[in-house]
Amino acid sequence: MQKVLVLGAGRVASPLIRDLLDHGLDVTVTSLDVDAAAQMIGGHPHGHPVFLDLAEDGRLSQLVAAADLVVSLLPYTFHPQVAKLCLEHRKHLVTASYVSDEMAAMDAEARARDLLFLNEIGLDPGIDHMSAMKIIDGIKAAGGRIIHFRSYCGGLVAPEDNDNPFGYKFSWAPRGVLMASLNPASYRKDGHIVRVPGMDLFRDMHLVRVRGWGDFEAYPNRDSLKYQEIYGLGPELETIFRGTLRSVGWCDTMHNFRRLGLLDEKARPARGMTCAEYLSGLLEVPAGGDLRRAVAKKLGISTDSLPLCNLEWLGLISDRPVGHDDVSPLDLLGDIMLEKLVYGPHEKDMVVLYHVFKARYEEGDRYERTTSTLVACGEAGGDSAMSRTVSLPAAIAVRLILDGRIPQRGVVRPVHPEIYNPVLAELAGMGIECREETTTLET
Amino acid sequence: MQKVLVLGAGRVASPLIRDLLDHGLDVTVTSLDVDAAAQMIGGHPHGHPVFLDLAEDGRLSQLVAAADLVVSLLPYTFHPQVAKLCLEHRKHLVTASYVSDEMAAMDAEARARDLLFLNEIGLDPGIDHMSAMKIIDGIKAAGGRIIHFRSYCGGLVAPEDNDNPFGYKFSWAPRGVLMASLNPASYRKDGHIVRVPGMDLFRDMHLVRVRGWGDFEAYPNRDSLKYQEIYGLGPELETIFRGTLRSVGWCDTMHNFRRLGLLDEKARPARGMTCAEYLSGLLEVPAGGDLRRAVAKKLGISTDSLPLCNLEWLGLISDRPVGHDDVSPLDLLGDIMLEKLVYGPHEKDMVVLYHVFKARYEEGDRYERTTSTLVACGEAGGDSAMSRTVSLPAAIAVRLILDGRIPQRGVVRPVHPEIYNPVLAELAGMGIECREETTTLET
Repeated sequence: MQKVLVLGAGRVASPLIRDLLDHGLDVTVTSLDVDAAAQMIGGHPHGHPVFLDLAEDGRLSQLVAAADLVVSLLPYTFHPQVAKLCLEHRKHLVTASYVSDEMAAMDAEARARDLLFLNEIGLDPGIDHMSAMKIIDGIKAAGGRIIHFRSYCGGLVAPEDNDNPFGYKFSWAPRGVLMASLNPASYRKDGHIVRVPGMDLFRDMHLVRVRGWGDFEAYPNRDSLKYQEIYGLGPELETIFRGTLRSVGWCDTMHNFRRLGLLDEKARPARGMTCAEYLSGLLEVPAGGDLRRAVAKKLGISTDSLPLCNLEWLGLISDRPVGHDDVSPLDLLGDIMLEKLVYGPHEKDMVVLYHVFKARYEEGDRYERTTSTLVACGEAGGDSAMSRTVSLPAAIAVRLILDGRIPQRGVVRPVHPEIYNPVLAELAGMGIECREETTTLET
Repeated sequence: MQKVLVLGAGRVASPLIRDLLDHGLDVTVTSLDVDAAAQMIGGHPHGHPVFLDLAEDGRLSQLVAAADLVVSLLPYTFHPQVAKLCLEHRKHLVTASYVSDEMAAMDAEARARDLLFLNEIGLDPGIDHMSAMKIIDGIKAAGGRIIHFRSYCGGLVAPEDNDNPFGYKFSWAPRGVLMASLNPASYRKDGHIVRVPGMDLFRDMHLVRVRGWGDFEAYPNRDSLKYQEIYGLGPELETIFRGTLRSVGWCDTMHNFRRLGLLDEKARPARGMTCAEYLSGLLEVPAGGDLRRAVAKKLGISTDSLPLCNLEWLGLISDRPVGHDDVSPLDLLGDIMLEKLVYGPHEKDMVVLYHVFKARYEEGDRYERTTSTLVACGEAGGDSAMSRTVSLPAAIAVRLILDGRIPQRGVVRPVHPEIYNPVLAELAGMGIECREETTTLET
């Protein structure tokens, strides 16, 4: 019986653990929260919950040595530590995280030891790469040249549970999502590089229609430019854009929240204050009086505009106590969003992944547009769409590697047909299907 | 003393009439509302208000015969009638309206009679053509090829008076603006034709930043494709787009209003009804109960989203009486918007006209981006920006024609340097200035 070591029993681990157990593997799951690990294993005879504090390097080393393959679902900063032990004990490694520079630096050594360190095999990164590469390779094989590529991904609320004015809910601390709101971005559009400073991120928004699922706002997601090389796209590529999807209205609200300083990380005194008092201080407008009007005036927008409605809806213009002696606007906003924008017990999330390609075919002097659409909704009271789409690709990859069906070695992303074809095929069977559509364009 | 006949004393006529009088011309102004004409003339000794019912063709003919030049500020459907009389009496004609097919058909005859029928010399159409052509001719003269052209125009509210959640106010009946919300549009983007059905107009939105004036929503304005020929742009043109500017939030609200059927023109019974009852009937949801929630459910959006806030803000979910026995949703919406979204006596409008060009220069293998920005705000208690920008170009053109400084003949748009150079120069002196800026693009 082959043995898999799964590090981390966080919110996306469950579908992976169950999949591996269901496929007859022996699975050890480590966590600081051993109860969570045990719950995910659900008493399966071949599942082993283990308490692990990563500071105890010796214990981790023993566990790695005892496994045939290691899956790290830990925060990406822990991966190099794990990868070094995998090199030492000659074990394959699977992660759903971006390849860091430290990870990339282990490529030669992993190859030398005949090991596969497969990263970015989650949703985004993961299914995005795989579904894109399948189309890219297909277009190239048919003699086309890709001149335009846009890729969008978003973790959203299922339409029937999308009942707040942000069109968004959190299943964990909002801090990461809020911090990501300040990342500068770059992409190529019509042959030119566009660089968007963090402060303009939400104003570089466009609408995207996903057929059958409505319209979403999209804003750019960090550095899209490097994907030209990663995806092997040629010099004829004029546009490459990777974006994040949100519900309509999100960008205007977040843009104006940023303008108010609500994304600032610097702590401010808040002892005994209400949210309204804290906000007055932050904006340097008189406390008391009509704060909503004062904020609107400061922003130069209407008191009845969506950002102001949302500010009030959250309770930031209210007597709600701040509840900290010192707190940054970012953390206060995070606290409040986690209170107000939260999934109820039977509410469902939704994952949308959408690609648009434009390719030129010399033969016939024609252009084709190809789209790929994946929409997955969570199950009421069951797994979230996010946990399934992040962890099932990794689970499938684990099984393929153990079956010896993946020839790649070194530090790898799932951009190779030997990986993406079987993974995508099996995902489709699980209801996680990227539907492709191609039309000829009018010129 | 040269004599100008101005037909129509509507809301934009005043700056033109004053300009012509101030420049020593004799001006006859006709209107069904002779008081309005008299008021605009303001007792000037060379101004003559005249009552005119256009059904009396003989009277119009006499007035045309007595003038040296005719300006028609009437609705465009009247222009052919006026133009025929101008042909008969051999008078030049100036209008700020689009060239209709009927007008275009008079080109040969106007040329044969050595007449200039100068149309589209207002704001949009008008200053848009002139400021664009100045840049286009400049780029061509410098050896550049235009590959990308987008042009945006909007009549908006001055920032300091922009105090409602629509970011819009009407100075006349909203029907035209609302009807225009249903026009299909077409444009070229990256070498491909995009056709937008009327029902998707507000979802084909993008944000545009006008430096110093903030961000606006833009949606496509009818047929942009024909401007490739009108502006003499070559086959290298990959993108041509003309759009309308609105405040952020407008498109989402109007898209959802359209989905509710609020832009439908078919009358429905409304005798004795409140707005809430009318809306319930329109949407086939039970009257009474929580109508806002029912509407939100129907649309699949949050009860707290901007379209719902705006629906309620207008009073459409209220006990306000409809006040008609039969009325279409479009007309009811128009009535209410004219009540709620109206300029106060000292409130100011704002006109924004913004072009973006991208040009390729073989020499140096480089790309340049050129923008042209015109922002004009109304004067508190004085002329609106819209009336100045629509009628002053026509006034300047009238004087140039009478001075014999425009050589063109036939049915003409102001796309010729002999017209746009002096008109734009004089407008700049009046504070209506298109500021150009050019940067080299990073590739």
